[in-house]
Amino acid sequence: MKVPFETLKKEFKRVLLQLSFTEEKAELCAHTFAANSRDGVYSHGLNRFPAFVNTVREKQVDIHAEPKFLEKNGLIEIWDGEFGIGIHNASLAMNRAIELAKANGIGCVAMRHTNHWMRGGTYGWQAADAGCIGICFTNTMANMPPWGGKEPRLGNNPLIIAVPRAEGHLVLDMAMSQFSYGKLQDTDLKGMELPEYGGYDVEGNLTRNPSAIIESRRALPIGYWKGSGLSFMLDVLLTAITGGRSTAGIGSTVRESGVSQFFLCLYQSDMHHQLIEEIIQYTKSSAPVEPGGQILYPGENTLETRKENELHGISVNEKIWAEVLKM
Amino acid sequence: MKVPFETLKKEFKRVLLQLSFTEEKAELCAHTFAANSRDGVYSHGLNRFPAFVNTVREKQVDIHAEPKFLEKNGLIEIWDGEFGIGIHNASLAMNRAIELAKANGIGCVAMRHTNHWMRGGTYGWQAADAGCIGICFTNTMANMPPWGGKEPRLGNNPLIIAVPRAEGHLVLDMAMSQFSYGKLQDTDLKGMELPEYGGYDVEGNLTRNPSAIIESRRALPIGYWKGSGLSFMLDVLLTAITGGRSTAGIGSTVRESGVSQFFLCLYQSDMHHQLIEEIIQYTKSSAPVEPGGQILYPGENTLETRKENELHGISVNEKIWAEVLKM
Repeated sequence: MKVPFETLKKEFKRVLLQLSFTEEKAELCAHTFAANSRDGVYSHGLNRFPAFVNTVREKQVDIHAEPKFLEKNGLIEIWDGEFGIGIHNASLAMNRAIELAKANGIGCVAMRHTNHWMRGGTYGWQAADAGCIGICFTNTMANMPPWGGKEPRLGNNPLIIAVPRAEGHLVLDMAMSQFSYGKLQDTDLKGMELPEYGGYDVEGNLTRNPSAIIESRRALPIGYWKGSGLSFMLDVLLTAITGGRSTAGIGSTVRESGVSQFFLCLYQSDMHHQLIEEIIQYTKSSAPVEPGGQILYPGENTLETRKENELHGISVNEKIWAEVLKM
Repeated sequence: MKVPFETLKKEFKRVLLQLSFTEEKAELCAHTFAANSRDGVYSHGLNRFPAFVNTVREKQVDIHAEPKFLEKNGLIEIWDGEFGIGIHNASLAMNRAIELAKANGIGCVAMRHTNHWMRGGTYGWQAADAGCIGICFTNTMANMPPWGGKEPRLGNNPLIIAVPRAEGHLVLDMAMSQFSYGKLQDTDLKGMELPEYGGYDVEGNLTRNPSAIIESRRALPIGYWKGSGLSFMLDVLLTAITGGRSTAGIGSTVRESGVSQFFLCLYQSDMHHQLIEEIIQYTKSSAPVEPGGQILYPGENTLETRKENELHGISVNEKIWAEVLKM
């Protein structure tokens, strides 16, 4: 079943207004959830919406909170998210980083005590749409064991890097686990197996079964010890800069709340567009592994999916869609 | 055979002075090569020294060049490395980023037309020794296929993240390939196999044989499509900011020369030391996979090796050491 973007957005907004969101916050969040589905990130679009509504109903997210400016360390601004809506907070933080970058070439906003921003790529696209290079990352609850360990002690801490480009931004949006929990959920909903080992089951065996990994919270880090190290360092950076909750502070036994995030923008008038096209062409010129195969740049798939979904509507999980319509 | 740090350094310096290095550059480079071996990164210490000497003899590296300040994009300084000595250039660039960070909380130096910096971790330790968070990355010649492709079109573009800590800095130094070329060379010299698949042989088969991967230049990216995407984006960032050579510009058929590098420092008086210790303790508290196994933070091993090698001398490859003594 396919649903137009505007219908998805309208229904999300209706539900959020019922929950006493302000017009502005309802508009932003409804747009973001609908756009996530439109861009093919279903796990953080429609499929996540009912869980998000629950966090609001259970008052894990304070929908009335506004991020508060705390202090400036040189040119880095430190903000407190006041346990407000993750999407709203992250969108404000990235806007502020864009503003600072346009004034100083570089803009840096670190935020503590915020909540899940849903799809990290949203804020990469936001920076690139404003003509800025955008880099951002977040910590999460512990959902990945460190290299050499069996129990989850690291978050999968997504990292986003976006570079603006007229023909389609270059946007990398990657969790430090081989598969994001969103991807695990998507694959699980489709009743499929993962294309590579994605983690361990509760008994410690490597598995391609997404629900076994969701259960054990033992996702496999990308590149084994390397992804484990990178995830650790992103958490250290976030904590050293914000003084907020690390993955250790968030823990793994309670619901994720009060995460730390970092937003960096770079802006310069000349981003050497022609040289970037050269990189894309050179990368694509590698002979494909599969005959007729294509080599894609980060974000290329997103743009294709967006165009397709804008034209023909967005595929929805009918059960979840029916649930939203009844809210 | 074990050699004291000072002996290694003295011999390196003697050779470099013979090659007409200035006293200052000979001191810095000799120290860096010796320190790389001392810290266990033998591939970019003694084992790399003869190849470095060749690049100087063949005038690929201009030992008389000094990096030139080009322009300021807001707070980002753009420098030209003038095809000088990679170690010298990177050390100057990181020093400048440290200086800027101490003044503004953040310091950002991008450099084009520089040369191989040897071990990237060197500059992470440099920033952390100065009390700064240091992040830096470089591009390289094409030595890794993009995901979906067979021919190398990406560099393995090492990324370094360092956070200062009194008890031992946290320093991640990772190439985007599952094994760095340094690690492949080390393993090859020892006549060993890799612990995991590291890439493809010239016929396109996955292999644990390091020399087969050095030959094919088809290293496996960490996390498959993810490391491929991250490597691509680091190259795009470097090129967009510096306007210098991308991996496409460096190419794969000639010797690597004129790479682009980025140095970012953050400084604030309070880095929330106690919260960082909490992260370390929490991470280490994961039950080990192997009974009695230990979970290490990035940089922990380096510090152990350094202490050990300072106490008992540095293990050297006798053939390479004899070669240096005869130079």
